[in-house]
Order: sequence, then structure tokens, then C-alpha cells
Amino acid sequence: MTDPLVIFMPSGKRGHFPSGTPVLQAARALGVDLDSVCGGRGICSKCQVQPGSGSFPKLGVTVAPDALSAVNAVERRYDEKRGLKPGRRLGCQATVQGDVVIDVPPESQVHRQVVRKAASGRAIVMDPATRLHMVTVEEPDMDAPSGDLERLRAALADQWDLRDLAVPLALLRGLQAALRKGGWQVTVAVNHDENRISAIWPGLREAPVLGLAVDLGSTTIAAHLCDLSTGAVLASGGVMNPQIRFGEDLMSRVSYAMMNTGGDVEMTAAVREALDRLAVELAAEAGVPPGDILEAVIVCNPVMHHLLIGVDPVELGQAPFALATSDALRLGAEEIGLAALGPGARAYILPCIAGHVGADAAAVALSEAPDKTEALTLIVDVGTNAELLLGNRDRLLACSSPTGPAFEGAQISSGQRAAPGAIERVEIDPATKEPRFRVIGCDLWSDDPGFAAATEGTGITGICGSGIIEAVAEMRMAGIVDAKGLIGSAAQVGTPRCVAEGRTHGYLLWEDGDRRILVTQGDIRAIQLAKSALYAGARLLMDEAGVDGVERVVLAGAFGAHISPRHAMVLGMIPDAALDHVTSAGNAAGHGARMALCNRAARAHIEALVRRIEKVETAVAPRFQEHFVAANAIPHATDPFAHLAGTVTLPDVSFNTANEGRKRRRR
Amino acid sequence: MTDPLVIFMPSGKRGHFPSGTPVLQAARALGVDLDSVCGGRGICSKCQVQPGSGSFPKLGVTVAPDALSAVNAVERRYDEKRGLKPGRRLGCQATVQGDVVIDVPPESQVHRQVVRKAASGRAIVMDPATRLHMVTVEEPDMDAPSGDLERLRAALADQWDLRDLAVPLALLRGLQAALRKGGWQVTVAVNHDENRISAIWPGLREAPVLGLAVDLGSTTIAAHLCDLSTGAVLASGGVMNPQIRFGEDLMSRVSYAMMNTGGDVEMTAAVREALDRLAVELAAEAGVPPGDILEAVIVCNPVMHHLLIGVDPVELGQAPFALATSDALRLGAEEIGLAALGPGARAYILPCIAGHVGADAAAVALSEAPDKTEALTLIVDVGTNAELLLGNRDRLLACSSPTGPAFEGAQISSGQRAAPGAIERVEIDPATKEPRFRVIGCDLWSDDPGFAAATEGTGITGICGSGIIEAVAEMRMAGIVDAKGLIGSAAQVGTPRCVAEGRTHGYLLWEDGDRRILVTQGDIRAIQLAKSALYAGARLLMDEAGVDGVERVVLAGAFGAHISPRHAMVLGMIPDAALDHVTSAGNAAGHGARMALCNRAARAHIEALVRRIEKVETAVAPRFQEHFVAANAIPHATDPFAHLAGTVTLPDVSFNTANEGRKRRRR
Repeated sequence: MTDPLVIFMPSGKRGHFPSGTPVLQAARALGVDLDSVCGGRGICSKCQVQPGSGSFPKLGVTVAPDALSAVNAVERRYDEKRGLKPGRRLGCQATVQGDVVIDVPPESQVHRQVVRKAASGRAIVMDPATRLHMVTVEEPDMDAPSGDLERLRAALADQWDLRDLAVPLALLRGLQAALRKGGWQVTVAVNHDENRISAIWPGLREAPVLGLAVDLGSTTIAAHLCDLSTGAVLASGGVMNPQIRFGEDLMSRVSYAMMNTGGDVEMTAAVREALDRLAVELAAEAGVPPGDILEAVIVCNPVMHHLLIGVDPVELGQAPFALATSDALRLGAEEIGLAALGPGARAYILPCIAGHVGADAAAVALSEAPDKTEALTLIVDVGTNAELLLGNRDRLLACSSPTGPAFEGAQISSGQRAAPGAIERVEIDPATKEPRFRVIGCDLWSDDPGFAAATEGTGITGICGSGIIEAVAEMRMAGIVDAKGLIGSAAQVGTPRCVAEGRTHGYLLWEDGDRRILVTQGDIRAIQLAKSALYAGARLLMDEAGVDGVERVVLAGAFGAHISPRHAMVLGMIPDAALDHVTSAGNAAGHGARMALCNRAARAHIEALVRRIEKVETAVAPRFQEHFVAANAIPHATDPFAHLAGTVTLPDVSFNTANEGRKRRRR
Repeated sequence: MTDPLVIFMPSGKRGHFPSGTPVLQAARALGVDLDSVCGGRGICSKCQVQPGSGSFPKLGVTVAPDALSAVNAVERRYDEKRGLKPGRRLGCQATVQGDVVIDVPPESQVHRQVVRKAASGRAIVMDPATRLHMVTVEEPDMDAPSGDLERLRAALADQWDLRDLAVPLALLRGLQAALRKGGWQVTVAVNHDENRISAIWPGLREAPVLGLAVDLGSTTIAAHLCDLSTGAVLASGGVMNPQIRFGEDLMSRVSYAMMNTGGDVEMTAAVREALDRLAVELAAEAGVPPGDILEAVIVCNPVMHHLLIGVDPVELGQAPFALATSDALRLGAEEIGLAALGPGARAYILPCIAGHVGADAAAVALSEAPDKTEALTLIVDVGTNAELLLGNRDRLLACSSPTGPAFEGAQISSGQRAAPGAIERVEIDPATKEPRFRVIGCDLWSDDPGFAAATEGTGITGICGSGIIEAVAEMRMAGIVDAKGLIGSAAQVGTPRCVAEGRTHGYLLWEDGDRRILVTQGDIRAIQLAKSALYAGARLLMDEAGVDGVERVVLAGAFGAHISPRHAMVLGMIPDAALDHVTSAGNAAGHGARMALCNRAARAHIEALVRRIEKVETAVAPRFQEHFVAANAIPHATDPFAHLAGTVTLPDVSFNTANEGRKRRRR
């Protein structure tokens, strides 16, 4: 007589097992993804399964009512104390008695999928580095003395086949008390990425292990606090990077470090403290102790990277932009100031791609996975520095481009950060040249009834990055700005909104009494410089790849999420492509951090991928300047922008005047 | 024509090499022990060799004058700048041209022997864990960006075949500056025991790597500062263990931790600070920066061990005396408060044998190597707790015995620590019962002319541990004390030096006006208790080993160095053995620490040996009490002490009186 057949669903894995085999043991033998923390002691309930009954014609099995052993005392006690869903069994208690089909529900799978909320919808498959393992440790014996730690190690080897685990000194301090309090049973958190113990608790640990995914930007630090067993985000939040007081952008912070002895140390202390405080705040928001956080995954640009790990970023301020270290870093969380986390907590920092293309770009590559597509994809992470990735499964290129902060509203006459009251959307009627706009914090357009009342609280305070891009693009489409970027006069354009500003003109977007929001000629020039740099970077990558166009464009970054693809194209920020192939990826760097937090294979993947990425240095490429000059026109002096031409006809206006010409020559 | 024959002396290793092969390369190919830091660049001079000339009949070689290439420009420059001894060549520059015999002088050998100064004369073969490696690192290239660290790693792999080295964050901070200052050449200190970089300097590092061997005792902390290339001790010193203010002996410190919340933390801070300060002081004494110290090896008893690593020792105060960890520890020096050492410095703590038999006992085993002898050896490390090792190459047993501090002069009426003015040697004339003695700080006996003048500075202040042992033994030999430990009266003994002290008697060793130093009946009892515990421990090990005697007795410990074997035997502290087989090993624990510091194979050896050592727990052994009681007599109630009887005849006196009997019964 053959042994009973056991089929696990949804994997379909099957095998014959002797009658009496516990379901958990059968699952392990077949490599079925069935969780367990207590290792089969019937107390953690992680191995819950749902046996089927009746006929399964497709599987060729009929399951008898007694295919599993009857519910036993352990299961009954668990059901009484905690409650088991109807039909559910504990996989470690139920034994196989006959042919059976067993469903492993998602919550009993370690590698369950977590669906991403953001636009792209890519899911994260849970495979956290940190997992819990309960063990029973032998009691000390005077006649065969050995340390409690050595017996714990032996138990982990025996009961979980875990060997050579590193144990930080900080955990040794609490070990003896935990063992005695737990009656020689403890739950150990093991970081499998590093083969290292990161926490020890008495008895069965039921609270989830937490992790922090951090996107450490020059301006803001954003973090998600995640449950590492379910992947659920328990709290999200951000704080300003306190290094701003040392310099608005990266290069001014590098300068600060160069000009002030100990300046790098100050900045390191500032960012570490902010990061630690953010962890504490997110934990408080989620109602959990920050000490339960056992892992932090951090993505950041190279300057932030060096300042975080305590390395002076001075070399990043000058060619050849040498990183102190480019590989991924695995550190004690306390080594980078994350003192509020558990004493054994670890920090993983993604690898940097180059001196200007950091771990944040690596995280974008991880999130957007251009290496897994056929289509030639350009990924643009727009910020103070833009990082660009171009490629597909065959080849991947990267560069950064010094766009400056104009896209973030800086260097713009009425520019401001994206905050309530800032103009974020703009439309201009091509016939009347009249604008309408929306501000952050209000869903109405400025010509909708009730707009004035609705914006009374915030006021109309300025233009943010996406607003200025739309404004300039709309001005170009409405014939207010010509291809060279000149604003016409009231007479040339035919609207009194074009007002003289010295020798140039500005376009009056809004006024209320003596408060006015104008788009000035200087604003247009600032945007042209920024977009030329961005486009030139993209072109340089395309040269390197030997292509004239791209199939997909992905706009990444929190700011990228707010850019209208059509307007970006009109401006010539990005190469010409079919508009429906231009998508926003939201905070791709942050999502990449979360992937690396929740799935340890993602770490190995990005570490290997970064080695494959070819870096193109814009600062020394002779063609960069040439591309930069040609990209100054709106959308471009020479590139055809054929897709754009198919959807938008740009007015063929020219406002070049002797004045403007002379002025530019005199500069 | 065969290639030239190259023979290296003193190893005798030989091989044929093509004409033009550098001597260093030939040495490496043959596995000859020839040092090099610069890796053959002709700048470190570590590979100096001395070619022979003329006929070597025993080796069957005749060396022609041109057997090596002529002195080249690199060697000339080195000779001009630094000076080369006559006939010396740089092994990396001189190439083989004909048959040649090459002597590798001791200072060019990595594994040179360092002769031990102390009594046993055992040598240490140098094989330090930390060695220097100079590398040329590729300069950064924008087109193929990689971190400076990654290129350093590549250079170490290429030029020294060193791979997967760990690098602490603290060293990353100085890496970029070192590379640039050194013109892309740096010297790296690699801890080969841990495969980890522990320091990085620009260019060629010429100063030696330093290491600290620490014997961390309950009372004193002693350390040697060593040059890790030559093994030379640059400075030695000791400080009082500041934990003394929390309790004189180990158990009172454990009690302090139990009774006072945070008491263990206080004691940890105190010992770490003292250790760090000692390192600074020794460095100052040697005229070197403490930051040049890259390794510390520490031996200590289990309570000191736990307090040093920051673990509450409370479990060591009660059965089953469970250690938090027993294995050897490899830590960052800063993790145990050694902040003055180099930022990448490491600390190695030897393994503990059991809850009462610590890393200090392991160090004694390493130093005295009973596992390498045929003779059954008893090693006694006398201190507040005595640790005992018994065995030979076949088997090794260990136990500790709670002797208490009497052997250190504590609990003795006139007892004091070993310091100038303390009586350390005593002789009593068996006929006259008159004593003479010596005090620490003076080479004269008390009956020598000039003694009074010579001791004027120190005075005569008390009796130290070795003094009381000799005094009691001499009293026994002179018939002043009987086998049961009773001091006779003046009438019974026949000397007015036996003075009544209440119902008992004392022996007047010295008086000056109203200042007197007596050996009281209470002192005898205290010594009896201590020696009984020590002897009972030894007997327990002998029981376990199934023997009635031992072949060798080694007295270890700083105190052991001062105990006279004959007096120890008369007292019955140690089992009977031929007197010339009882030797002192000096500070064997400290020597073991130095061995583990200078020779990394010693670490592997002691780690393996500790696993082999069988532990015997005295606290729970039923026979311990029985042995203890029998050992109360001087020398012993039942054991024959045949060897002793052959050299010393102990007077058959008995001072038992009704008084003494009643008094003892009433207790």
C-alpha cells in the first residue's frame, strides 16, 4: 500500500508521506512555503493550514473526512485561547492519515506577496532578511560547563540548522536573563542576510519584527515603518533634512565641509540625529517600541551616503568624484546613530553606482527594473541632481546631470517649495492667452466658482516646480514664448499679461492688489538651463547606447510624480516618445528601499545589477556641452520630437529683438 | 643546463629557479620565512638577506662571487639613506644568477623566536595576527567608477592574495586622505586572525605594530606592551583594579552587582577606564602613540571577564555558575572601552574553561602546556581563587577551589599585600625557636648587620602571603605548631616568643617598642582553611584522574613565583612530590596572554584545548568536603607525604588541651 499523497496548494507541490507525518514536516520536506516560529511546538500558530475535503478531480484526489488526524489537545487549547478560523488546523499538530489537499493561506506563507499601492502596481514578494526562530536551550550543567550562548548556538544548529551566527556584544548582556525568564525557551531574531542574531526574547515572541525603509534625500528624509512578516506599512513620515542649514544643495554642503574644519562631522551628527528621531516618531505613530525595529534599509545620494556613514564628502566635490566606498554596506544600526532601534539592529545601505549616481539611483533601478524589460527605457529621477538610467535587459547605462534646483522652484522669481498655496498646475488658453491654475491644497481651478473662498486659508503664495514647468510649457503652446525661450511683448503676443520687465518681458499669471505672480524671462532661462542639462544627460546615454530614441520614459522621484508628461515633452525635458509610454513611478527610490527591506534577494540582485550598470560621466563628456546647447531651445533646436508634433502643434513665433540680442552678447 | 640552485638557511629549503628570479620570489615559492611589508618595492628593507660565498661542502654547493646580481640602484639608494649591514642584500632586488646559499637573518623572519625571560625559558615563536602589507591602489577613473575601498580591496587581492577583508567604518573615514597623501600607496595592517583591516597609513609604514597583553586580575591589572614584529616588550606595568572599591574579592563584587541596580554597569565602566588608562600609560612609557596599538589580548577570571564585556556576573555567584559565553571573543577594542587604541584595533579574550575556571586558567594551560608533556602535571594558579589543572598529553582536568584571600595576606592579623616593608621570607631555628626574616625592598636578613638601617625607609609593616606561608611552615618544622595547627604555649615550646592571646597562643615574629608582629592561632586557622581548600581541589582532580600522586607541580601566578616549594609542601598546600619537580612558572597567565598576542596559532590551540579540558566542579563534589577535612592537618591527616618525609622530619608534637578542645566544640 502506498503512503498517503499530500498536495499543497497553491504551489501544487506533492509527495507521499507515511501516515502520521505532521503536515509541517511534509511541507518542509517538499519545500512548501509554510511559516513557523516555534518550530512545531504548537504555540506560534504561524503554520495554520486549511485542509480540503471531498473530490478534487483536477488533482486526481479524493480527500476523506479523516485524511488528517483529529483535532488534538494542543489545537483545542490554542483555539480556546486565541481562536482558529473554521476548518483551520495547526500544521505542526495535524498529521497525515490519508490522501489530502492542503491549502496554505497567504498569512501562513513567509513569501506572501504585498501589492504595491503606487501607480506601477509592482508587488513585493516577502522574503525578509530577519526571521524569528524559537528554540529550547539546554540548561547549564556544572559537569559539562559551557556558556549560555554556546548552548543557544547549539540549539539553533540542532533545531533550525542555523550555524556560525554572529552575536553582537550588546545582546549578550540580556541573554542570561532572557533564557531564565523564558524557562530555557527563547525566540531569536536572525538576520539571514548577515547570518547574525539581532534580538533575543524570552519564550515565544509574538510581536512582529519591524523594519525601516529610508529614503534619505538632501531636502527631506522619508521613511516607512514596516511589519517584516506581513510587509504592511505601519507608519510613514518624513522630516526636513537638518543639513539644510549647512547648505541648500549638495554642492553647498560639500563646500561647507571643505571650508569648515569638522563641518562634515557636524552634518553627520545632524542627519543621524534626525534619522533616529524619525524612527522614534514613526514607532510612536504605530504604537510600537522603536526597539522592535531590527533593520533599516537606507537609500541616498552619494553625498548623503558619505555624510551618513561619517566620511568627509570632499572628494565628491571635485573630479574624479571618487567614492570612499561604493559597495552595499551592512552595519550595526548604532554605528550610524540609529540608537533608538534594537541593540542588535542592522542597517543596510544600497550600493552606489558612481560618485554622482548614488544608492538612491540603485534603488530606482531595483524598483523600476529596466533590466527586466525588452523595451529601451529611460528612467529620470528628477531632483536637485537628476539621475538617469537608460537601458533594458541587455544593457544598462547611468549618469547624473547637474540640473540645479530650478525644477524644485528654487531660482524662480516666484518659486517656492511644493506646499499649500503653491501653484502646481497651469493652463493657458491659446486664443485669449488667459491662464487658469490650481494651487496645492485645493481641487478647484482658479476660474471655478468658489476658488477664492477655497484658497482663502492658504492664499496663493508662489509657483512650485511642477507649476513652473506647466507654466512655461503652456506659454510655449500659447505662443507667449518662442522656441528660443523669449517672452513676447504685449504687442507681439496680443495680451496685456505680457508686461515689460526692464528690457525683457514677463507673463502675469496672477495678481491681487500689489501682489503679483509673474513668470519672468529669468525664470524661463533658469528652466531652460535645467531642462537642457537633463536632456543633454539623456542624449549622452542614448549616444552611448547608440540609439536615437527611447521606447519608454519613467519619471521617478516625488517630484516626478507631479510632472505632467505632456508638458515635460513640450519643454523638451525628456526625449520624444509616445505620450502613453511616459509614466510616473512615484517615489521609486523609496519603493526600492522597501523592496530591499522586505526581500533579501532584492539586495543580492541590486548588488549584482550595480556592477553591470555602465556609468557615463557627464562632467567630462565633450558631447555633453554640445547636447546642452542644442537642448536650450523649446523643445529642441535640432531633434525632431516627432511624437510630440503628432499631438501638439507649437506656434511658430519668434520674439528675437535687437535689444535681447545685444543684451545676451554683452554678458 | 639546469637552473641555478638556491638554498635558504637556516631552513635548508632549496629549489632551482631561472636566472633572474628575485630572491624574495624564490623564498616565497619555497615557503621560506622571509618578511616583506612593501611587497618587493625595495623600500621596506624587511627582506634583507645575507648571501654566502665560497664552498659549502655539507650543502654540496659552491657559491660564485656573481651568484646574485650586482647591487642595483634601489639597494644603493637604500644603503645611502638607511644603511645596509655589510654583505646584506634586499631580497626583492637581488636576483639569482648562479647556485647560491642565502642566509635569512632572524630579523628578516616573520616567525622568529622570542626567548622568554622568566624561569621556564619557553620561547614564543612570532606569528602575530596583525601584519603590514603595502599596496599600490589604482587611481579612481570616472569612466569606471568604483569606491576607493573597492580598489584597495582589489589591490590587496592582486598584490597579497588577501580577500574578503572586513573593514570597520571607523577606518573608512581616513581612507581617502591616506590614499591621496600616500600617492596611491598605503600600508594596511591586516588582522589575519579575523581577516580584517585594522589600520591604514599613507605610503610605507615603518613604525612597528603594537599589541597589548593583559592579565586582568581581581586585584591588579598587569599588561605588557609588545612590538608585534619583534616580540619585544616595550613597556610593562600594572594598576590596581579599581573594582576593589566595590568588593575585595570576586564574590563580594558579584554581591555588589546583585544588591545594587546598575552595580555591574559601574564596575564595567571602572575596569574599562582603568584598562584604557593603563594602555595610555604604557604607550607613554614606551614613547609611542597609543593609537599604534592594534591588538589587545586579555586573560581574566570569569567574573572579570563578564564585567569587562558588560555582562552582569550574577549567574556566576550561584550554582550552576553558568557563563554567558565561554568561547574566545574577538571584539572591537572600543567595544570594551579601549578607546585610546587605534580606531580599528581588536581585542581577543581567551576562552573560559568553566564558570569558576576562566580565561586566565586557559592562558596558564597555554603557557605551561601540560597537554604537551608525558609527566602527570599539577598546575596551581594561586590567588583569591585557586585554579588547578591536572593532566598530561592524554587527558587534562581543571577545577577551581575557593581558597579565599588568606594566601594574599588578607584575613591574617598582621597580613598585608606584597609591598615594601612586608615580611616575605621567614626562617626559624628549630633549636632556639628564634626567627629571622626578610622584608620586601631589602636583600638582608633581619639578623644581618645593617638590616635596621636598610629597612628604615620602608619600616617593617606586616606579613605578605609568601611570608605567612613560610612562617607557618617554619613554625611547624620548629615544633611551635603541631600537626593539628595548634600553637604551643611558651612552656610547651620552650620560648617566650609563644605568648598567650586569650585562650590561645601566638608566636612573636618581631617587636619594636609597642609595635609587634605576631602569628596568631587565628592566622594558622585561616591558612589551614585556605590550604585545605587548595589541597582538596587537587585531590579531587587526582580522584577524577584515578591517581594517588603527581609527577610535577607547577606553581603559577605572580604569588606562586614567591612561594617556596618546600614550605608549601610542609604546609600540605600541594600534593607530595619530589621537591625538584615543584617549579614556579611566574605569571603564567600573563605569559599565556603574550603567547596568544604574538602567535595566532596559539589562539586556535587554546580554543581547541579548552574544549578538551574536563571540568570538575568542586562546589558540588561530595568528596570535596571529605578531602577538605583531611587536609586540615599540617601537612595532612592521612596522606603519607613520603617525598617530604625524605627531606624534612616534622617534630611529633601535640598541643591539644582541654581548653582548645572545649572552645572548638562550643563554636
